[in-house]
Amino acid sequence: MNATFFDDWDAAPAPAPAAAQAGGAALAPVRADDKRVIGGKADINQLAPFKYPWAWEFFLNANRNHWTPLEISMAQDVHDYHRTLTAAERHVFENVLAYLTTSDILAMRNIGLAVMEKMSAPELQIYQARQVYEEALHTWTYQHCIESIGLEQSEIYNRYRVVPAIYGKIALANQRLARILHSDLDLSNRDTLHEFALSYFFFAAIFEGCWFYNGFTPIFALQRRGLMKGTAEQLQYIMRDEVLHCSFGIRVVRELLHEENLTLDPAAVRQLWQEAEAAESAYAHYILQTPILGYNADLHLAQFRFIANRRARQMGLEDPFPGAENALPWLDEQANLRKEKNFFETRVTEYQTGAALQWD
Amino acid sequence: MNATFFDDWDAAPAPAPAAAQAGGAALAPVRADDKRVIGGKADINQLAPFKYPWAWEFFLNANRNHWTPLEISMAQDVHDYHRTLTAAERHVFENVLAYLTTSDILAMRNIGLAVMEKMSAPELQIYQARQVYEEALHTWTYQHCIESIGLEQSEIYNRYRVVPAIYGKIALANQRLARILHSDLDLSNRDTLHEFALSYFFFAAIFEGCWFYNGFTPIFALQRRGLMKGTAEQLQYIMRDEVLHCSFGIRVVRELLHEENLTLDPAAVRQLWQEAEAAESAYAHYILQTPILGYNADLHLAQFRFIANRRARQMGLEDPFPGAENALPWLDEQANLRKEKNFFETRVTEYQTGAALQWD
Repeated sequence: MNATFFDDWDAAPAPAPAAAQAGGAALAPVRADDKRVIGGKADINQLAPFKYPWAWEFFLNANRNHWTPLEISMAQDVHDYHRTLTAAERHVFENVLAYLTTSDILAMRNIGLAVMEKMSAPELQIYQARQVYEEALHTWTYQHCIESIGLEQSEIYNRYRVVPAIYGKIALANQRLARILHSDLDLSNRDTLHEFALSYFFFAAIFEGCWFYNGFTPIFALQRRGLMKGTAEQLQYIMRDEVLHCSFGIRVVRELLHEENLTLDPAAVRQLWQEAEAAESAYAHYILQTPILGYNADLHLAQFRFIANRRARQMGLEDPFPGAENALPWLDEQANLRKEKNFFETRVTEYQTGAALQWD
Repeated sequence: MNATFFDDWDAAPAPAPAAAQAGGAALAPVRADDKRVIGGKADINQLAPFKYPWAWEFFLNANRNHWTPLEISMAQDVHDYHRTLTAAERHVFENVLAYLTTSDILAMRNIGLAVMEKMSAPELQIYQARQVYEEALHTWTYQHCIESIGLEQSEIYNRYRVVPAIYGKIALANQRLARILHSDLDLSNRDTLHEFALSYFFFAAIFEGCWFYNGFTPIFALQRRGLMKGTAEQLQYIMRDEVLHCSFGIRVVRELLHEENLTLDPAAVRQLWQEAEAAESAYAHYILQTPILGYNADLHLAQFRFIANRRARQMGLEDPFPGAENALPWLDEQANLRKEKNFFETRVTEYQTGAALQWD
């Protein structure tokens, strides 16, 4: 638990009513200017006035686009999986699911427990609370797919521990978070603060912005051929959430660096990208050890590099993989579920009240 | 950050692929029997098999009953507040809102950051992730009411610091949580574990189960007379969530006590109830210093005692206020929003797929 939450209460019992009644400047309402991403002194319990109104907009948008996995039929996927997919395609499908389900249950705890507690402005925490829930919703979605298709739950959930190429990505994320995101972190130390910013950047831009984004792509390749369309549509919803998590996280890190007059160390950033690419390469060559129609490990990695450049630019950093080209030009269009199915346009309006979905 | 999350990753870097491939019992899937509420050794990243299937049901139910404050019209409330309410009624309304908004933003952080991190079974965390989000949704709801009616945001959010009778309840909750819910708590110590169980009980049964429950009642008294019906309907949704949080929390504490062969110390429980009643009494006499039609501080307190007995019985404890009678027999019926408006029956079915709402 971060110190900022309970300090007031640890230091002293409830003030005598007289103290509270005394009023004066100490009890004046919060001023937006006093809020900060980290280490702000403004009372964390007062939502308004907002210093970061864009964070509140992220929260409202996320709520407008609410969905649950029960809305999407999985009937055809059961048939596809058991009757149509080749062994290589089943290998891809199962391992993607195994990777994603472990990633999202980790994401739930990490963003919820390690990052959210360090924020000192409530409007940042409130979107992260939604984000924590969305990771749980994604876990439910994978569980729903696993159950619907009849895969062996225990084996799928355990697979990340057994398959080194999956374990490598999970371990990389956990090692970074384990070193940096302890609750007793002294964020008044600038080196520590830099490490925190770097880790949040890793989590938003790489873990959510590249690995999740790319994580869905092999299933979208099946979807293009009319296979596993229920699962793919579920993943389109999840992808939208993850892209918003990525955008939000990058925005928070940029605000933090600006407020603290900090810059990410270019060598440290370069190392992040190199490690991420190496882990993704091992993963791609494992899941696609036998290529499937229209998709292979080289395409997967090329796409990773292309998306990595996009994330770096969002952050205002130089391209980690100069010249990387869009290896899967169909992906961005297909990923945008409104073009695929006009799903939201045909639904009740409450959950889509006019907000154009911000795609990255 | 609780030790159980990152221990594996702190202790060692990613295993060499050979180690992961070695397999064997150490890498066998999780067994449900190995899961525990606190201190379980089963891999926290594996959702299934469930040891606590009821927790998963709580999660599914909560998702089926999704709502947002934008669905409820606030137009008549604007008129009621500015044209119809008496000064005493406005005093009640504003202070109830001020209390609730501070309580829910605290609840978001406390359940999310202090309690959730201590759970060692993912199916418990996943409902708590939803719970964290619901607290954020409630904060949005109060903000929506405050904005719609045109109250001064800063003043309302700050009021809990200025008004001792509101501050008293918030401070009591925070003091308890501050002492007990640190992330470095040694939960292998039985005294500490007892303190944790007691605090979670306080939070679920008193903070959410009594104070929130009773917190809404003054507005329901206005609603009975046809006033502030939009706000009241918003609060009916929130009340349903809070009752489920209460039921879930009590269930978790009961499981924990059972697993650990612990009993709550009766004297400590008695003190909890006494402090809670004293704080509620100060609050009731402040917000109802001038009674309103059909509602006063004595009724409010009598209802608190009646609901407190209900919570104690859910926990298997003796009545803290023997003989307390149902002072507001209309409340349970009115609080059940399906009787009030049949709201869910008239909505799209996705969000209410057959699950009868479990009311307490």
